[in-house]
Order: sequence, then C-alpha cells, then structure tokens
Amino acid sequence: MLRRTVLALLAAGLSSLGAPAFAQTDPLPSWNDGKAKQAILDFVGKVSQEGGPDFVPSERRIATFDNDGTLWAEQPVYFQLQFALDEIRRLAAEKPELKGKEPYRSVLARDLKALSADHGKGLLQAMMTTHTGMTTDAFANIVGNWLDVARHPTKQRRYDEMVYQPQVELLRFLRSQGFKTFIVSGGGVEFMRVFAEKTYGIPPEQVVGSSGVVTYRLDARGRPELFKQAKAEFVDDGPGKPVGINRFIGRRPILAFGNSDGDLQMLQYTAAGSGPRLALIIHHTDSEREWAYDRSSPIGKLDKALDEGRAKGWTIVDMKADWKTVFPGKP
Amino acid sequence: MLRRTVLALLAAGLSSLGAPAFAQTDPLPSWNDGKAKQAILDFVGKVSQEGGPDFVPSERRIATFDNDGTLWAEQPVYFQLQFALDEIRRLAAEKPELKGKEPYRSVLARDLKALSADHGKGLLQAMMTTHTGMTTDAFANIVGNWLDVARHPTKQRRYDEMVYQPQVELLRFLRSQGFKTFIVSGGGVEFMRVFAEKTYGIPPEQVVGSSGVVTYRLDARGRPELFKQAKAEFVDDGPGKPVGINRFIGRRPILAFGNSDGDLQMLQYTAAGSGPRLALIIHHTDSEREWAYDRSSPIGKLDKALDEGRAKGWTIVDMKADWKTVFPGKP
Repeated sequence: MLRRTVLALLAAGLSSLGAPAFAQTDPLPSWNDGKAKQAILDFVGKVSQEGGPDFVPSERRIATFDNDGTLWAEQPVYFQLQFALDEIRRLAAEKPELKGKEPYRSVLARDLKALSADHGKGLLQAMMTTHTGMTTDAFANIVGNWLDVARHPTKQRRYDEMVYQPQVELLRFLRSQGFKTFIVSGGGVEFMRVFAEKTYGIPPEQVVGSSGVVTYRLDARGRPELFKQAKAEFVDDGPGKPVGINRFIGRRPILAFGNSDGDLQMLQYTAAGSGPRLALIIHHTDSEREWAYDRSSPIGKLDKALDEGRAKGWTIVDMKADWKTVFPGKP
Repeated sequence: MLRRTVLALLAAGLSSLGAPAFAQTDPLPSWNDGKAKQAILDFVGKVSQEGGPDFVPSERRIATFDNDGTLWAEQPVYFQLQFALDEIRRLAAEKPELKGKEPYRSVLARDLKALSADHGKGLLQAMMTTHTGMTTDAFANIVGNWLDVARHPTKQRRYDEMVYQPQVELLRFLRSQGFKTFIVSGGGVEFMRVFAEKTYGIPPEQVVGSSGVVTYRLDARGRPELFKQAKAEFVDDGPGKPVGINRFIGRRPILAFGNSDGDLQMLQYTAAGSGPRLALIIHHTDSEREWAYDRSSPIGKLDKALDEGRAKGWTIVDMKADWKTVFPGKP
C-alpha cells in the first residue's frame, strides 16, 4: 500500500517534469482561444525552449509594455490628467483663496475649453502645479492617497482596478517563463511607480516613463532630498520610446505591446531585431465592456501603427473578440 | 550499508537547511578579517533575517556601486579615457591623412599639455570623436574589440581583468542574499554595459551612468537605428548620482559603495534613509599591489567624502589592510 502510494507520487512527479508549466493549466484564462493567444503561446514556447532553433537566453527575454490603453484604460481622459484635475480641486478646497485663480477657476468650472485654449496652457498649468515644486517622496504620497479615494467617473472603480486582467495574466506568464517585464510609457515615471509594483508586479526600476528635472539638495535640517522642478526633461513617447529603452534597459526587447501611434517606434525597433520577435497592438473594439476608438480618437489615436502592424504581420489584439474578461473581478 | 549511506546523506542535507549559506564557507575569501568585512557580514545578515528587527524585504535590498576606483582600477587615467586615446590612434593608423589634425596630432605625440589646454578641449574632442557620430550598436562593437586587444600600460593586463576580486565576491554575495546590484557611475553608460554583465554579473538594465543624446531614426534601408549625437545629456556624478538613482532605479539604496568625492551625495542619500543602511568607501592605500592616492589626486580625489565618512561612521575600507587579494588570479 505504502509502496503503491510512493509509486503513484513518483509517477505524478515525473510526468510533470517533462512538460512545460503552461501545458497543464491555462496561463491566460482571460484570453479567448484565437490567433492572438496562439501567437503569444507559440512565441513564448519557442524562445524558452532550450536547444530549440529559436531559443533566447533568459537575460535577453525583455518584454516592454506601454501603460495607458495597453495595461490599464485611458478613457475618457488619461488617468494621470484626471489625477491632476482632482488634485487641483482638492487644493482649492483646502485653500479657498485659490478658487479665483487659474488654473483653479477653470478646473472647478469644468471649463475644458478654457483649459485647452492657448495650446492647452491651462492643462499644462494644472499638471505643473500638481507634479512639481515638491520632493519626490511627497509626490509619491499624494499619488498614493489619490489612488485610495479617487473613482473612475463612469466605471466607479478605483483607478488601479481599471487594469486589464488579460494583461496582468500575460505579465505574470511572461515572468514565469524567464522574461523580464518593463513598462515603457509616455506617462510620468514617478506617477506610475507608485502603483506598478503592486498592480502589475513590475518594480520601480523596470518602469520607464516621461520625467521632469529633479534636483538633489539638503533640506533646512541638512537631510538629503530630491526636489521636482517645473521643467520637462524626457518625453517617453513616439521616437522617445526606443531612446528610453536604450537609455534605461540597454537591450532591444524581443516582445513589445502597445495600442497607439505613440508606440509605433517601439514596435518597429523591437520587430527589427534579429531572431524571434513579437510585436502586439491592442485594438480598442469593445464599446460595451470598455471603449471603442482608433483612428480619430484624441486619446490613444491608433492609425499609422494599425496600418503598419497589419502590413508587417504584427499581432493585432481585438479586445472584443480576444478578451474573455476585460477588468478584474471585484475583490 | 545502504541504510547508513541514506542516513548520512539525510543528516548532511538537514544540517545545511537551518544555517545561513555563508556560515559554511567564507563568501568573501579575498577580504581579510577585520572591521570592514565584519560590518558587511553583519549588515547583510540582519537585513536578510526574516522576522528580525532590521529585516528589509528583498525587493528593497538595493545596492549601488560606483565603477571607476570602486569596482575596477582608475589609474593612471580613467580606462574610458584610455579607450578614447587608443581609439584615436587606431583611427589615425587607418586614415593617415588624419595624423596632422587635432586631436589626432596631440594624441599621437602624447602631448598631454596640448590636450589639456583650453579646459581640456583636446581631450573632449578625443572623447566626442570616439563616442559619437555612430549607432549604439557600432559603438558597443568598437568597445568590445578594444577590450580584446588593449592592455593596461603598467599592469599589462586586459582592462576587464583590472577589476577588484573582493568586490566581485561582494557583488555575488549580495545577490545570493536577495540584493539587486546596480552600477551608478560617472562613466558612460554605453561603455560600461559592454562588459558589466560578463565582468560583474550586472545586466545592462542595472547600469546607471553618464550619457549623451541618442536619436531614433531609420537608416537608408528603412531599418531602425539609434544614433549617438555629439551632445551631453546627463552627468551621473556628484549630486547627479542620487538624481540618477531616482531616475533609473526609483528606490533609495540601502547599501552604497564609492571611493571618491564624486560619490559623496550618493552615500549621503543612501545613509539618510530610514532603517538599516551601509555606506562604504574604498580608500586607495596600496601603492604596491594597486595605487595609493586620496586628497590630492586628480583622478578619484577623496577628500570631503573621507572626512564626512569618518565623522558619520561610514565604513572606510583600507585596501592595503582589508583586501587579501586585489586583482583576480590570471586565468
């Protein structure tokens, strides 16, 4: 009897040794079976198959993901802009004397026309007011507090619950297969780092984003601090994405995932490397569960990259058809 | 007999389970027993002891190392400058018509006075000529070729053998105890990334350094490339080091290791964080095996940081006394 149990255990153990981990349970349960899912599984399988013709050593399995519209939603406006507007309202409530001044007046009046006038001067003021003139630690605290209280205007959920469940599964799956996963986003790097680790399992040092000038100085009591200056430094968008990848990662990704024309150069750069490559684009096609938009959207415009992706055989993910679930279940 | 063997194997296996890995064999064999080695062992022991009062979760065990003079030697001149001078000579040999022009003429004549005149205009020209005006891939190839043929002028060794054996052991030991190790150096990031992975076990994405502007573009055949422009972008030295740490790592280190005044702000920033911290400085005291220099050296000047380190109780490593071995044995 004992011997039988031991043999059964051995057999079970042995049978699991030869097979890849994802043969047993579906690593991407929120993806519908179809071309996109199959392309991912095939790619990951072949690059991690030691001795195979397409094997890529683990240290070169670099995967880069855009954030807005690729890992979490970006409608009706980028969430970082929503943060800035919420923050302006919070500041005005704390200091009523601000209410008559710009950009407070226009934000409180929800006067988007005034905020957008003069090349978006008001919006830029709102961004600068809420993102600079403080230490990096203070900014991170403010973003953390906002995430705890803010809710998405139509979906009524926390913003860090507006992430795409299929993508969270994909990130986890890639890491389980020896990939190192990075965010490469036009969003502010200090903003994303507040939630990227908990939400996506991506640590701060693997978040690449836009940034402003930060200065090292000693405070009045001689303690070192990093101060966020009101000056842009690096825009991690469009051609800035491969530049940011080179600067921060120093290796060309073998997999890149985006959703807009701002990701085109990252996808080109990734796809043009030698050896196996996977370039993916999310096409927002789901007006019921999420939003449907592409060529004419002011947010997340997808036009040139869609054409080039189709021409070059990149994997276009149709959100409506390819995703079984969009957002995670309520906790 | 079989039963005895099994029991012995079991006993051996079990006895190794409870003890920390470094209790059995010395993880730092090239370090002499003394205050510096003990400070490292104590620090690493306490931050990785789960449940202990000084425990630090693995994802926050960030360790940053300066490169020149901390991980490898920097005398008689920084090796990256040596690379530039060697490269100028190689280019002049390939194209003799260059020999009369600057900076070629002065480099070939070893006319350091001419190269240093006018605020080092000639040296800067030599750096720009050899570091810009080409793609990042081409530059990496050139550095790799140089490492294969160049030899240190007095030690007659490959430059990537001029690394400090005790530090290579320390990096490996820290990683074995859950630390993530980074280079944070004034050296050029594209230069260091060529050898950092093989030499130190530090992958490109964990190398922070100075950089020039890089531009994304398509070549004549429409293939993406990254082109190194003749324009400085970021100087990762002095107050630039904590700024670089914030930008690239996004977390304050708990351990930092430097050797010159250019590391002072990185050490201040690291030491000023809450919880356990270890700030270390190498004092170059070994004129026989390496070089002895500090306050008055034009390369790797150590003056203010030595005073501040002593005043604040940072760990000052005395190379002559604390290191059993300096360079690795000949392969």
